[in-house]
Amino acid sequence: MFVYHKRMRLRPEPGLGRKGGTACAAVLAGLACLWMGAAACAPRRPVPASYASAAEKMRDIGLCEEGAFTLLARIAGVGPRLTGSPGAAAAVDLAVRMMRELGFENVHAEPVSVTRWVRGEKEEAEVLGAASAEAALLHVCALGGSDGTPGPGIAAPVAEVRSFEELDRLGPAARGKIVFFNRAMDRTQTDAFAAYGRAADQRVRGAVEAARHGAVAVLVRSLTFRVDDFPHTGLMTYEEGVPRIPAAAVSTADADRLSALLGKGGPVVVRLRMSCRTIGPAPSANVVGEIVGMERPRDIVLLGGHLDSWDLGVGAHDDGAGCAASLEALRLIRAAGLRPKRTVRAVLFMDEEFGGTGGRFYASAVARAGERHLVVMESDRGGFMPVAIAAGQPGGPVLRRLRAWSALFEPLGVRTFVPGGGGVDVGPLVRSGSVPVAVIPDAQAYFDVHHSALDILRSVHPRELEFQAVSMAILAYVLAEEGI
Amino acid sequence: MFVYHKRMRLRPEPGLGRKGGTACAAVLAGLACLWMGAAACAPRRPVPASYASAAEKMRDIGLCEEGAFTLLARIAGVGPRLTGSPGAAAAVDLAVRMMRELGFENVHAEPVSVTRWVRGEKEEAEVLGAASAEAALLHVCALGGSDGTPGPGIAAPVAEVRSFEELDRLGPAARGKIVFFNRAMDRTQTDAFAAYGRAADQRVRGAVEAARHGAVAVLVRSLTFRVDDFPHTGLMTYEEGVPRIPAAAVSTADADRLSALLGKGGPVVVRLRMSCRTIGPAPSANVVGEIVGMERPRDIVLLGGHLDSWDLGVGAHDDGAGCAASLEALRLIRAAGLRPKRTVRAVLFMDEEFGGTGGRFYASAVARAGERHLVVMESDRGGFMPVAIAAGQPGGPVLRRLRAWSALFEPLGVRTFVPGGGGVDVGPLVRSGSVPVAVIPDAQAYFDVHHSALDILRSVHPRELEFQAVSMAILAYVLAEEGI
Repeated sequence: MFVYHKRMRLRPEPGLGRKGGTACAAVLAGLACLWMGAAACAPRRPVPASYASAAEKMRDIGLCEEGAFTLLARIAGVGPRLTGSPGAAAAVDLAVRMMRELGFENVHAEPVSVTRWVRGEKEEAEVLGAASAEAALLHVCALGGSDGTPGPGIAAPVAEVRSFEELDRLGPAARGKIVFFNRAMDRTQTDAFAAYGRAADQRVRGAVEAARHGAVAVLVRSLTFRVDDFPHTGLMTYEEGVPRIPAAAVSTADADRLSALLGKGGPVVVRLRMSCRTIGPAPSANVVGEIVGMERPRDIVLLGGHLDSWDLGVGAHDDGAGCAASLEALRLIRAAGLRPKRTVRAVLFMDEEFGGTGGRFYASAVARAGERHLVVMESDRGGFMPVAIAAGQPGGPVLRRLRAWSALFEPLGVRTFVPGGGGVDVGPLVRSGSVPVAVIPDAQAYFDVHHSALDILRSVHPRELEFQAVSMAILAYVLAEEGI
Repeated sequence: MFVYHKRMRLRPEPGLGRKGGTACAAVLAGLACLWMGAAACAPRRPVPASYASAAEKMRDIGLCEEGAFTLLARIAGVGPRLTGSPGAAAAVDLAVRMMRELGFENVHAEPVSVTRWVRGEKEEAEVLGAASAEAALLHVCALGGSDGTPGPGIAAPVAEVRSFEELDRLGPAARGKIVFFNRAMDRTQTDAFAAYGRAADQRVRGAVEAARHGAVAVLVRSLTFRVDDFPHTGLMTYEEGVPRIPAAAVSTADADRLSALLGKGGPVVVRLRMSCRTIGPAPSANVVGEIVGMERPRDIVLLGGHLDSWDLGVGAHDDGAGCAASLEALRLIRAAGLRPKRTVRAVLFMDEEFGGTGGRFYASAVARAGERHLVVMESDRGGFMPVAIAAGQPGGPVLRRLRAWSALFEPLGVRTFVPGGGGVDVGPLVRSGSVPVAVIPDAQAYFDVHHSALDILRSVHPRELEFQAVSMAILAYVLAEEGI
């Protein structure tokens, strides 16, 4: 990148001093800043001085200390936190401890009954009759919720399709086969979540659709833009009255290889062995802590992520990052010496990945308690740089106000304000009238690691995560002061 | 992240079909897209259909093929490309070959005479009398342009300062010392380049300032937000009449350790050994190729990066990424079957890091040729996601037009248009009246790797780099059609 000495003078110009660098470095730093001075969209209002100063304080503390990453390291340090697993239980204990250490109020765990599924021994898949052991090996993982195979596994010819329509056209030819869903995430989609959404049906409903046609198992291309050897798991579903056939994800590199093999014309027989199974109900919990509002303690601004994760990595991005950013947001409000009028609450939900029972339970419990959840902010899109804020309905008052005060968020790179927000865990609250708000991070690298063994601490950038946490802290503070 | 099955119906709703996923997946994908529909700032004009379609075509090809990363892999494959080194010469040959393979026109190398500096054997630094070999070891690297030490090295007590002012206050106490500049990049600066700019004076001018006070060498804290064991090099300068003392960067972790050691009060003696030296002039070259304009071939829109790199990594972000993105931009224009009215030229400059001779030579050579460089677009801020476009003067016609056509760039995440642009290599052209334009990437992770052994291919994300290359291609095409 550009070298700063080029226009440097030997000594600073008189009057400019040398504090923090030479005069020229300061000039050049100014130039580097130039593009940051973007004029935001139309109706700006002056930001109240108290909000500007609170935002600056929280930003300085956050960026200096990078507390979100420290919190994330502890959560990720628990290891995988699959719903109902000992790891998830340990995470609940840790979260309660962390919230107490951070000085949150009314810290408690709220019991939730979840369904526990276990992967069992590592899954295996091989192409029978392949030229070598290496050529035979397929990198697979059971999809969450799948039944296992009978002991020795299932060996069957593979039939490749790219959509449920193709599967329908295959018709009886799918009978007795392992149906291989191989529609890739569309790279030309600039919105990575949209690309994911348009390919996820294969994973979620592939087993049901294939079983209707008499298939004996399904292999699903992993949902990532990258071509590599890491299978990506995620939830699949069964349906009453349709045979429950085993479902596994296969790495994208192996999906391409398998497709090429099938392209040669002859039958390709794969043996799949999985020992996963659903065990049944298990006790677990959401974890709740807060900063009690000074004037309207029963009016709540909720921030949250989900504490459970998939079992292949340690759920650093998904959703340790959301949990850590939520905790950090409350920590920053406290560290800046602020106590807003309304309550700011962090909720670490259990079981987002396996059914959202935590979110549903929380919503019903708070309904009983008579609390008013004004704003709900779910963070579950990875710990990357924030690029936008989504808030409620188009033209709604929250969106209008945030847009008017965009200057609070501009230093953090957030200049776009759009309708939206919400998520699985806060969905029930949104349906009851809470305004969804979300910090939207850049997500082009998210699906590289999502639901795979690559979702580890190292994949999260401490500073990027902190930008997200600080954005959430400012949002939470301002909304808890202003209400909706 | 959120699970797509939650609101899925068992079967798609009638009329919606199942193409590309279930109806529900489509609905949810739509939701995921919601925030993308940001309204851009004020004066929008309808984008001419031909530009919209050209942009879409280039975007689809680029994101699908990720050609920029393939090009980058070849450039990085050369290894380090220090100005005047055999690596740089190999990169020049490769660049000519690549441009020809890509079908560019008028491909040629333009000879430039550069100054060659060599690191020699690996540098060493140790704290004398430390408790263990591990405690003694300091991770250092010579700064670019530094003289080496006498054979056995320099052993001297260390004096720590954080600014040139502190150094002045130290006064005669600096005599005979190794001055240790330890002002960290300020993490509270949200603009990473500004934080860099405000700390870079220590590296660039530290040796001169310390030598004026009689110091025998300088150690400079590496310029990165991270605390780790990797020293970051970069250019330093000497000054006529001031003794040339050796200058090395020390890793941030060791800088903290050294500072703590000094904080204990007793003298800390460090021995520094470096065998680097400036060899003298060496032949090298800029590499040039283009798509000749159909109507005004001597009116030029220039895209470029610098082919030279530092020697510790392979210069993947700095600036293999800028070179690859420039080449890819021209490739995309061709691949989309476009030939603009004016010439689009890629220039891979030599010697940005060590003096900018390539840029100066290029500007003087083209002045001779009578070409008119309307727009110059330097890419040298890392291969990350684009977040903004900088273009010329505030309120200038190029900025106004690009802002009006922001819809061309919105799918790529670029919604901010500001004055700016420029850089070391195109600086001379800008001073002669060319309009600087730049795609500004997010840079929060850039200085993690910048000028260090961490600047390797794996640190660049193929899709993020492609977003940048596509943005550049659209910019170049539209500006070559429109002129300024």
